[in-house]
Amino acid sequence: MTTQVILLNGGSSSGKSGIARCLQAVLPEPWLAVGVDAFIRALPASLQASDAGIDFTGDGGVKVGPEFMALETAWMEGVAATVRAGARVIIDDVFLGGAASQQRWRKALAGLEILWVGVYCDAAIAAGREISRGDRVRGMAELQAELAHQGVEYDLEVDTTHTESLECARIIAARIG
Amino acid sequence: MTTQVILLNGGSSSGKSGIARCLQAVLPEPWLAVGVDAFIRALPASLQASDAGIDFTGDGGVKVGPEFMALETAWMEGVAATVRAGARVIIDDVFLGGAASQQRWRKALAGLEILWVGVYCDAAIAAGREISRGDRVRGMAELQAELAHQGVEYDLEVDTTHTESLECARIIAARIG
Amino acid sequence: MTTQVILLNGGSSSGKSGIARCLQAVLPEPWLAVGVDAFIRALPASLQASDAGIDFTGDGGVKVGPEFMALETAWMEGVAATVRAGARVIIDDVFLGGAASQQRWRKALAGLEILWVGVYCDAAIAAGREISRGDRVRGMAELQAELAHQGVEYDLEVDTTHTESLECARIIAARIG
Amino acid sequence: MTTQVILLNGGSSSGKSGIARCLQAVLPEPWLAVGVDAFIRALPASLQASDAGIDFTGDGGVKVGPEFMALETAWMEGVAATVRAGARVIIDDVFLGGAASQQRWRKALAGLEILWVGVYCDAAIAAGREISRGDRVRGMAELQAELAHQGVEYDLEVDTTHTESLECARIIAARIG
Repeated sequence: MTTQVILLNGGSSSGKSGIARCLQAVLPEPWLAVGVDAFIRALPASLQASDAGIDFTGDGGVKVGPEFMALETAWMEGVAATVRAGARVIIDDVFLGGAASQQRWRKALAGLEILWVGVYCDAAIAAGREISRGDRVRGMAELQAELAHQGVEYDLEVDTTHTESLECARIIAARIG
Repeated sequence: MTTQVILLNGGSSSGKSGIARCLQAVLPEPWLAVGVDAFIRALPASLQASDAGIDFTGDGGVKVGPEFMALETAWMEGVAATVRAGARVIIDDVFLGGAASQQRWRKALAGLEILWVGVYCDAAIAAGREISRGDRVRGMAELQAELAHQGVEYDLEVDTTHTESLECARIIAARIG
Repeated sequence: MTTQVILLNGGSSSGKSGIARCLQAVLPEPWLAVGVDAFIRALPASLQASDAGIDFTGDGGVKVGPEFMALETAWMEGVAATVRAGARVIIDDVFLGGAASQQRWRKALAGLEILWVGVYCDAAIAAGREISRGDRVRGMAELQAELAHQGVEYDLEVDTTHTESLECARIIAARIG
Repeated sequence: MTTQVILLNGGSSSGKSGIARCLQAVLPEPWLAVGVDAFIRALPASLQASDAGIDFTGDGGVKVGPEFMALETAWMEGVAATVRAGARVIIDDVFLGGAASQQRWRKALAGLEILWVGVYCDAAIAAGREISRGDRVRGMAELQAELAHQGVEYDLEVDTTHTESLECARIIAARIG
């Protein structure tokens, strides 16, 4: 069957956004790229740093509260509806809840053809890339490198430790039905 | 009935995004803010400058092609589904097609409680703000100042020519059921 | 004599950067626009949030430490040398130290023809614009609205409360020798 | 003698900015990071796309005109003065003129202790990273990969093709006197 959703999951600075942009460049059909970062930018500023919303602790930890979760669920339903209306969509997310996060997407995307992709990166390498980017809270990359994958099931895994984003995108594109 | 969607329509540099952020700050409940700019960022780079996608001509004109329109329709369905799933949403758009653009949103948002807000700004003032922002193609503000409102029906109109974004937001917030 | 430097001083969200971009557009000769924001981006990340560097306290306060001051002095010397080498330069700064900050620039820019411009904005209006921008720490605009001008002497004062950036730029441009 | 300037030269998307940020993180003393990108942002918008200023042609080519060159020379003098005033500075540039560009910096930085670093990256890999970044004109990475190094003499060369930015930064830091 034809793949309708490519879901990229991995820790911060593992290279998901870069792979998403390369996928858009190599896939012959137009794909939209949406991600949890864009969802966070859509939140009120007050929820971007609060116990009810999302909170980036000094050491790289991320806590999300009940209002964040409720709005995120609604956003996930929106992404699913975009796909059902005919758009191919690449989703870029960090499963802070591991298997539970995957279950939330499974529910929202029920009935759609999804390619689940794990984007791995060695924790120390991701931490180095976090420094080189300069726009992220330090510590997230290392904390999330394994956490994001706990209990998650994939159709395909790529590892950006020694493989470029474009090459990862080509590997993924080869699996698109 | 309770307002579920605030739709801000106006030309480039008329102040929509600023009003959206102020609305998020003054409204007691959390509202998501989404806009056509975020949709454009989700497109493949190849569609961001092409006949099939969106094309910014040198003089400030904007042309959208069939693939842009198809993906935009799917995105609009997604925004509507986000609202139906329980999120309050502020939409920020430029109705390049005037009344026809409004009709597309009416169809996508069918059954939802919408506050239609026209965001006006004197063309010369908007053109000046376009210069002061420095991140927009020159000429869009002037070309769109009237074009975006042709044949569109509103519940409320605000004018940023002499009224601050925060004050406009308060006027709009006072109308939220 | 020919003006070589336009120094815009005012609180956060008073409109300095917008005026600088409009000045670049209306002045017939090319002018470089540099500002303290670009200097801060040039600092190591570790100094962007530390006692030795610059620290944005939660309530909008800004504290700068000895290493920040030393590097800033060197940067000011660099800006002055750029002017001495023949470039016209618009400087955009916030005089957190009031008259003492002006004295530091006077020393660095010794012998150059400077137009000192005070960029005023009503504190409540600036605070509203800070919300509408959405990219600044809340509270800086209000705290700095008067603080930045204490004891500072100007050749010209503009007020963005009721005057657009482009109009302020035209007023300033009319004074350029 | 003590190194006062680290000059990183390489093509677009070769990884210079990332190395600069990592150098700031690993070096024990504070270093400012300045680059030609910041200089371009300081130019009037009119010079950012013109024959007299800088022009990005559709195929990745970059042409600079006489006004760009004159302002750039003044900016280089400013960077040199910042160093002479006591700041350590990392410069990130693309030597579009090869050996002639190096000669311009040699003149501006006369008498200062410079570490010249060539930042190499395989053209095809850099082109892939350009796609994954998504914020650059396509084609520059490939065109500049060799061009930027023609006739340039280095104290040290690093290659980001298979080496992370942080590791390159450590190699460079080990050479700082």
